Amino acid sequence: MKDTSLSAIPQQLSGPRITAVDTYDIRFPTSRELDGSDAMNPDPDYSAAYVVLRTDAGDGLEGHGFTFTIGRGNEVQVAAINALRPHLLGRPVAELCADPGLVSRDLVGDSQLRWLGPEKGVMHMAIGAVVNAVWDLAAKRAAKPLWQFLADADPEWLVGQIDFRYIEDALSPGQALTLLRRGREGAAGRAAVLRERGYPGYTTSPGWLGYSDEKLTRLAEQAVADGFTQIKLKVGADLDDDVRRMRAARAAVGPDIRIAIDANQRWGVAEATEWTRALTEFDPYWIEEPTSPDDILGHARIRNAVAPVKVATGEHVQNRIIFKQLLQSGAVDVLQIDAARVGGVNENLAILLLAAEYGVPVCPHAGGVGLCELVQHLSMFDFVALSGTTEDRVIEYVDHLHEHFEDPVRIVGGHYAAPEAPGFSAGMLPESIATYRYPDGSFWTADGAAVQAVVA
Amino acid sequence: MKDTSLSAIPQQLSGPRITAVDTYDIRFPTSRELDGSDAMNPDPDYSAAYVVLRTDAGDGLEGHGFTFTIGRGNEVQVAAINALRPHLLGRPVAELCADPGLVSRDLVGDSQLRWLGPEKGVMHMAIGAVVNAVWDLAAKRAAKPLWQFLADADPEWLVGQIDFRYIEDALSPGQALTLLRRGREGAAGRAAVLRERGYPGYTTSPGWLGYSDEKLTRLAEQAVADGFTQIKLKVGADLDDDVRRMRAARAAVGPDIRIAIDANQRWGVAEATEWTRALTEFDPYWIEEPTSPDDILGHARIRNAVAPVKVATGEHVQNRIIFKQLLQSGAVDVLQIDAARVGGVNENLAILLLAAEYGVPVCPHAGGVGLCELVQHLSMFDFVALSGTTEDRVIEYVDHLHEHFEDPVRIVGGHYAAPEAPGFSAGMLPESIATYRYPDGSFWTADGAAVQAVVA
Repeated sequence: MKDTSLSAIPQQLSGPRITAVDTYDIRFPTSRELDGSDAMNPDPDYSAAYVVLRTDAGDGLEGHGFTFTIGRGNEVQVAAINALRPHLLGRPVAELCADPGLVSRDLVGDSQLRWLGPEKGVMHMAIGAVVNAVWDLAAKRAAKPLWQFLADADPEWLVGQIDFRYIEDALSPGQALTLLRRGREGAAGRAAVLRERGYPGYTTSPGWLGYSDEKLTRLAEQAVADGFTQIKLKVGADLDDDVRRMRAARAAVGPDIRIAIDANQRWGVAEATEWTRALTEFDPYWIEEPTSPDDILGHARIRNAVAPVKVATGEHVQNRIIFKQLLQSGAVDVLQIDAARVGGVNENLAILLLAAEYGVPVCPHAGGVGLCELVQHLSMFDFVALSGTTEDRVIEYVDHLHEHFEDPVRIVGGHYAAPEAPGFSAGMLPESIATYRYPDGSFWTADGAAVQAVVA
Repeated sequence: MKDTSLSAIPQQLSGPRITAVDTYDIRFPTSRELDGSDAMNPDPDYSAAYVVLRTDAGDGLEGHGFTFTIGRGNEVQVAAINALRPHLLGRPVAELCADPGLVSRDLVGDSQLRWLGPEKGVMHMAIGAVVNAVWDLAAKRAAKPLWQFLADADPEWLVGQIDFRYIEDALSPGQALTLLRRGREGAAGRAAVLRERGYPGYTTSPGWLGYSDEKLTRLAEQAVADGFTQIKLKVGADLDDDVRRMRAARAAVGPDIRIAIDANQRWGVAEATEWTRALTEFDPYWIEEPTSPDDILGHARIRNAVAPVKVATGEHVQNRIIFKQLLQSGAVDVLQIDAARVGGVNENLAILLLAAEYGVPVCPHAGGVGLCELVQHLSMFDFVALSGTTEDRVIEYVDHLHEHFEDPVRIVGGHYAAPEAPGFSAGMLPESIATYRYPDGSFWTADGAAVQAVVA
């Protein structure tokens, strides 16, 4: 049952090794405030299956990564990360950090674990958590924030981090290299711009489905006052409610602020079309997740039917292969990456390159636990050294749970300020981990409902 | 964190309830003989994440189900099934068995667990295992083999078991009802035919990649002597080897026996096309899994390029939504369902109906642990009460591990004999479970490698 490939680790290599792959089931009781409520996820408890790679380097550096979940089942995600432990333990740190993309391919290629996907769902997200922890460690060892680590990297090396299997018909290594070389032109200037004014964000905080109209209006007005040029509303539970809420939001922000709407996969093709058209009078900028993230052809038909409203999806898209087809079939106007659903930074590099090849803007999904912290690095890299623009590009921002992170995002005038601390901004505060570990953290042991859940 | 929907269980209902949802991690050391070896799965240890639903009915009936895996990670699959336990425990047996499809929708709709898919990978397969156990119990309570339980069911009731979300643009409930009503015409006669001559099978046993040419030739000749009219060869590791093996196989079976080839997702679009063309002189019947199961558009392009060789896929297709698109885009000639990857019998009913609507034959994937035992019921239902034909339809057969089942498949003259024991044929022998439980079964505790793996 033991993976014999592990014996292939060159034991003669000197230098520090991975000494621990520690996992944590961390859950925040967000459902009690209806933060994060939408048509498909009425009561999320924002959670993280969290992993820490420790080494014997003696430099104090660790690699941190996580999968975001919304509560129940976080223990399954932790079990999946634990299943990857034998692939990491004892491996030379220098080797891992020299090629995090190869680590990803190694994990994806485990012939037995692969059956549990392939490259999708719990097992693939676990790989993403572990691989992102390696990227975090690699950037820390280079003493750079990840966005800069990527932007400074040789284009040839970046291409080598990417698994082109199943996407070469849309993007060859040669095409990727061309895009990355072109992206390097003027990169230093754009890095200076980024450091000065940040990367534009938009906010979903006003629009959760569980909020009252009064709260929606107040938060929408606040968003504009804070400098955001786009907000987002959750829709899809009840059309009359959506019309009323959309009218209130448009009245609150005026005609010049973009309002995206988000159905969280609630509809089939026909319903998505009808519902979106019914809201068109309020000028929605994009309709997000109108249907299943698996339905490439359905998105293409919806897009044709609801234009000029744009179609966006991606936060639940399982891997680069589905993204490739969304682009090949002209199914989306806006591509939404998520930092913690696919197989790591390297797979998101592939997706950013595919989007660049097809000329489709990337507007990342964020929010949850730490997703803003992670994904900002990918958009900033894209601006500095790939697409070279922030036109029609915004990173989602939700003002929840940042206080639990060592290097929380900073929003200034509706923009994400460029992080300067080395790494991927994935580190959670030790006291937050101790408090919200489930079910044995101090919050949960003091909480009657959690004790009940543990007993049940 | 507790799912409040559980409180909606009507406590006043009398009658037996689910008293236990017991799970077992069962692993067979198949990698030691290279049984089951292919280009992507060189060393599978065929395994099952097994679940037993127990009740207080006092009738001795249990519901059995499982997810098939190939070794490492089986514990993750077990953890996912365990995460579903609160949805089942204490529920009235009569209510569950009256509508197994509603159980599936209930589990798929758990708003927190849904994030871990949605409807794909580890979490979806766990739902499939549990829901199939409910179908097993329902058929046992009706004292019918599952194929007959389905064939005898009211078409209206069958339609009610299906989740049409995300597939209504290809198959409406009304269309499904029409197909099922038409399928009922002449069903009794076809059931008699089925009981007399069985359902045609084909065998993969000769063609595993790890076998020598001598063993391949001997097993291929044996397959023809045993009455099979189709065999299958694994390909995709080395083209020269494949040419040599395909030539040997064709020489062994003659021109009239179909030889399918199976690349197990090894290729991208271009390589799939070239490699298949290079083998065309040996008249392969279908090329199976030429590329990623996620690549709908890729399969469509490969199909156009390799005709008249047919394109088949499905064993790793995650759900009805991908199957729908494979059909909508004309990407496959042969659709391969798997009994234990999607969300239960009800989702496979949806897939069978989609295939019937598009006129594409279904040739199930089987083998592994117990997949033959399960999937035969679905094809037999399809013959008796849906498509009404076995033309160009065959169920895969692999002669491994059947001895561990209470009601193993019986192959007579290359045909699956119709099972007559009530239920879904999912039951594994108690002594097999006791022997192969991992890591504490008697086989593994006596095995040095397993002890080493546990310690590591």
